Amino acid sequence: MSTFTAINLIARPAPGPLSPDVFDVVENEIPSAGPGQILVKQTYMSLDPAMFGWMSPDTESYIPPVALGEVMRSSGIGIVVESNHPDFSVGDRVMGMMGWTEYLVSSGDGLRKVQPGPEDEAVLSIFALPGLTATQGLFAYGEPKAGETIVVSGAAGSVGSIVGQLAKAEGLHVIGVAGDDEKCHWIVNELGFDAAINYKTDDIAAKLAELAPKGVDIYFENTGGPIQQQVFNSMNPHGRIVVCGMIADYGKAEPSAGPNWVPIIKKRLSIQGFAMPDHFAQVPELLGKLTPYVMQGKIKYRAHVLEGLESAIDGLNMFFTGDNKGKLLVKL
Amino acid sequence: MSTFTAINLIARPAPGPLSPDVFDVVENEIPSAGPGQILVKQTYMSLDPAMFGWMSPDTESYIPPVALGEVMRSSGIGIVVESNHPDFSVGDRVMGMMGWTEYLVSSGDGLRKVQPGPEDEAVLSIFALPGLTATQGLFAYGEPKAGETIVVSGAAGSVGSIVGQLAKAEGLHVIGVAGDDEKCHWIVNELGFDAAINYKTDDIAAKLAELAPKGVDIYFENTGGPIQQQVFNSMNPHGRIVVCGMIADYGKAEPSAGPNWVPIIKKRLSIQGFAMPDHFAQVPELLGKLTPYVMQGKIKYRAHVLEGLESAIDGLNMFFTGDNKGKLLVKL
Repeated sequence: MSTFTAINLIARPAPGPLSPDVFDVVENEIPSAGPGQILVKQTYMSLDPAMFGWMSPDTESYIPPVALGEVMRSSGIGIVVESNHPDFSVGDRVMGMMGWTEYLVSSGDGLRKVQPGPEDEAVLSIFALPGLTATQGLFAYGEPKAGETIVVSGAAGSVGSIVGQLAKAEGLHVIGVAGDDEKCHWIVNELGFDAAINYKTDDIAAKLAELAPKGVDIYFENTGGPIQQQVFNSMNPHGRIVVCGMIADYGKAEPSAGPNWVPIIKKRLSIQGFAMPDHFAQVPELLGKLTPYVMQGKIKYRAHVLEGLESAIDGLNMFFTGDNKGKLLVKL
Repeated sequence: MSTFTAINLIARPAPGPLSPDVFDVVENEIPSAGPGQILVKQTYMSLDPAMFGWMSPDTESYIPPVALGEVMRSSGIGIVVESNHPDFSVGDRVMGMMGWTEYLVSSGDGLRKVQPGPEDEAVLSIFALPGLTATQGLFAYGEPKAGETIVVSGAAGSVGSIVGQLAKAEGLHVIGVAGDDEKCHWIVNELGFDAAINYKTDDIAAKLAELAPKGVDIYFENTGGPIQQQVFNSMNPHGRIVVCGMIADYGKAEPSAGPNWVPIIKKRLSIQGFAMPDHFAQVPELLGKLTPYVMQGKIKYRAHVLEGLESAIDGLNMFFTGDNKGKLLVKL
């Protein structure tokens, strides 16, 4: 009998870096697809900052937390290896929420077929959560207009790097914020951002004044942290703030203070939070918007690939340290 | 020669209660209307919390500050007493931005004629800034739906009292926040709010849990202060926060912290600031929306009338103490 590995969530993590104790690595026999089902062998899975939210017991979040004892949630890509389902054939490439597991049996709900062409890494780095999130956030809430200035925090991250490139393609002045010089260099010299701020070493206020002399029209927030107040101070009247991620706060026992609201009136700002699970029905439309930019070569990415399912456990902590260079993926 | 009184702003106020030193009371000869002009005798003028913004030197606000040496800005209502303007006749009742003055000469720009019917006090309390602001804020940004729960801070104030009554007329569950028991009694027993919270004496969190057991869908923010974080904590997914006033902060040297942004993502909240001067072009449309509610007797008000132009100086400080009972007006 062949076996496969899966990783279950068995405890709620404390704030801060994850302890391996919250996971249980299990070995099981590879199952067979039942009637109407398919068996999928996952090839790559995606690690995303949203996972910290999915593990927390907070019942007010946008999707229910992962139940204790269940396979940890994640999106991934894989190959159909057995099919009793009329819409799927052996050899089909599929993507969707697969979880931390090498194999899964599925009814096909929530999985979609991936056309031949882009490699698995590109599919997960652009056409999965990162690209969909970037497209929805920038266009639906950021309302970008050519000539405007956008600041993107977490700019070398999977979402931020795509937001910046989309904004650049739309004719905006794009400033990215990242946590080390290599990332700053990458977003400017490889991705074509107009400028970068290293929030760890630069004087953020001075740098913003220099790089955004006309102020900031759109702030795409992926991180939180000290940059937030500084960019908020630089917002122009009628500015739009898109709140997509707050990784700097996910590890804190006490949430940090937000900006005072007086400027929200004075500058008539809008602040909009969003999460992709609300918009899964719009995926075809979002892909329709995103794909032409990719086809025109305007969206580059880099993947940071870890090897083997168990590497996911330590891999997640890279979101706190910023050690990953590019979209975090696990190759199975 | 007859003279009239006007009050000029001559210094920028320090944070906190206003000192009379920032104003200069002047006597001048009553002028005549020049070619194409009208002379207006103001009968009532409105005092509004927005005045603290208009006096501050902050050039980033939604309208330029009042220049030093100029008549203090305000809206008011009055009678045309001389006219060289084809569209205005002696005896016409007009309203608009008139300033702290008993008489003014105007080209007619920015003044509109008021039809006979409602008394001056009602016009300034409902159809001027308060009602327009309430209508724009609630409908354009609050997106009220019958059965939802709204919390209105500054609920006994000129804007808040109208927001709550409009929301009630739309079938919402309406909770008002005010600073004394008399005001709480008034909004519930006279205006028809469903419930009230006295932010000075109630346990705000406990009271919110009791009065809004299904959470809060719309938060109409007129005040800031400690209530803000508590209502923010009670927001439902997809909740809308309309930021209209922050009077609790206008008097502070250091702005108070705002809520942390993590819940903005988790609950996909929208936060929208606005100011009426952006929407003066929409006044006819806003009046078209507001007037039917008034005609149906659904919008009550009370005016707190001070006597004589100079009473405005101390009158403004009532916004900090909450001593006014109703819309603050000055009778000239």
